[in-house]
Amino acid sequence: MRRIRLTLEYDGTDFYGWQQQKRTGERTVQAVVENAVAKLPGEHGRLTAAGRTDAGVHALAMVAHIDTSSDIADEKLRRAINAHLPADVVVLSLITVAPDFQAQFDCYYRRYLYRLRVVRDEPHGMALDRNRALLIHRHLDVLAMQTACRSFEGLHDFASFATQETRNTERRLFICELREEVSELHLHVAAEGFLRNMVRSIVGTLLWVGSGKLRPQDVPSIIEARDRARAGQNVPAHGLYFVEAGYAEWDREASEALLGRRHIGRASA
Amino acid sequence: MRRIRLTLEYDGTDFYGWQQQKRTGERTVQAVVENAVAKLPGEHGRLTAAGRTDAGVHALAMVAHIDTSSDIADEKLRRAINAHLPADVVVLSLITVAPDFQAQFDCYYRRYLYRLRVVRDEPHGMALDRNRALLIHRHLDVLAMQTACRSFEGLHDFASFATQETRNTERRLFICELREEVSELHLHVAAEGFLRNMVRSIVGTLLWVGSGKLRPQDVPSIIEARDRARAGQNVPAHGLYFVEAGYAEWDREASEALLGRRHIGRASA
Repeated sequence: MRRIRLTLEYDGTDFYGWQQQKRTGERTVQAVVENAVAKLPGEHGRLTAAGRTDAGVHALAMVAHIDTSSDIADEKLRRAINAHLPADVVVLSLITVAPDFQAQFDCYYRRYLYRLRVVRDEPHGMALDRNRALLIHRHLDVLAMQTACRSFEGLHDFASFATQETRNTERRLFICELREEVSELHLHVAAEGFLRNMVRSIVGTLLWVGSGKLRPQDVPSIIEARDRARAGQNVPAHGLYFVEAGYAEWDREASEALLGRRHIGRASA
Repeated sequence: MRRIRLTLEYDGTDFYGWQQQKRTGERTVQAVVENAVAKLPGEHGRLTAAGRTDAGVHALAMVAHIDTSSDIADEKLRRAINAHLPADVVVLSLITVAPDFQAQFDCYYRRYLYRLRVVRDEPHGMALDRNRALLIHRHLDVLAMQTACRSFEGLHDFASFATQETRNTERRLFICELREEVSELHLHVAAEGFLRNMVRSIVGTLLWVGSGKLRPQDVPSIIEARDRARAGQNVPAHGLYFVEAGYAEWDREASEALLGRRHIGRASA
């Protein structure tokens, strides 16, 4: 047996998230990729990912590992797996790694991106990007949202932004930045780990700030309250992308450089 | 009755093209939009577009007209139609026009874009953009393709690039330009009108040039041959976008300025 590390891109639209469900009939990324690997000769283990994305969430570069007895060379193996995969998930790269590599436990940080498409003045993208970004029809105070972002950075108890109870709701955000792109706003967040729906409720809270329902200076008290009812609602999954699993200590420059090669969003025609 | 002019964006993936089919069960943009208008009170005519796109072809801004007895104000009418439309087609704008406006016959030129996504070095986009651009896995000689483009510009008999026979196969291309974007190549073409599959067979021919099967200087003789067998094959529809219907004489600067606001493709994250 050998262990392989896969980098996967997927369109989350038609997946019921990453994790294989006990209930039958629900299509998950894990199940689809395991089934593709299972079509190859030999014995194969279970697929483990750096992060378990929810239904509708996309991935530009999810990292996962699986054990296999196959002795097919890496690049040929990558093509063989892709040949058995549906079009909405693809193995971007595949390498043989040390047998103790753990896609989940060796991961130092996860980075996500949330795309807000501002269609108020320029409505383009409403049909073509309907499953790729959240459409925003109203005016947003971007500067206020950017100010609010700073309250999320650093070590906090994020209980106000967790859908499921967990024992430890403390997390450290390495970055929480809202960047203006062509007709879009991109929220960039990176942390060792995230609570369930944490990014989506942070975006929901930022939208309250952007529409004037909250002031940026109200955000720290919402964090301190440790009360889910105080924060904004979860925005839809289809604007969310898993963009990086980091296997070294957080290094802002290195992460930005990598991201610059993982293109997303809309450029000028 | 009054005549309204609609600008439509649609994702061509799940449409059997623009035109309503005599056979039942085939979903077309024309039928879907006519059905949405028919849900409003009053009498309504048939929908006529500037161009009739084939199955799988997208539109950033298709222009069409329809007559209606509805007296709902323009913006409210736009929202009412959108409320009855599925998510893959949207009315971007709607205005009341002179009763003799003709979306098809008053149109001076049509502009299309074909997106080639180069995934050889940077495989990103293979899943998320699978229905938005043609994936190119091999090296392409972009300079040779750009040189070949120049042979298509101007007035030519394009019989070598027509799928269906028509009496007059002469067309004037105002532009035929291959532009390098982030990880993509975009072919821009504009003409008074196009023959069936003309853009897709031009792209197929350019791909022969890019891969060395043809030299740029071979292209004029392929045009002159007036023989469909000489030109490259039709590339898939899902990379093709209808981007502009022009209702004034071709003006390169004006067209470029408009296009710059109709964002498409991939930007850096």
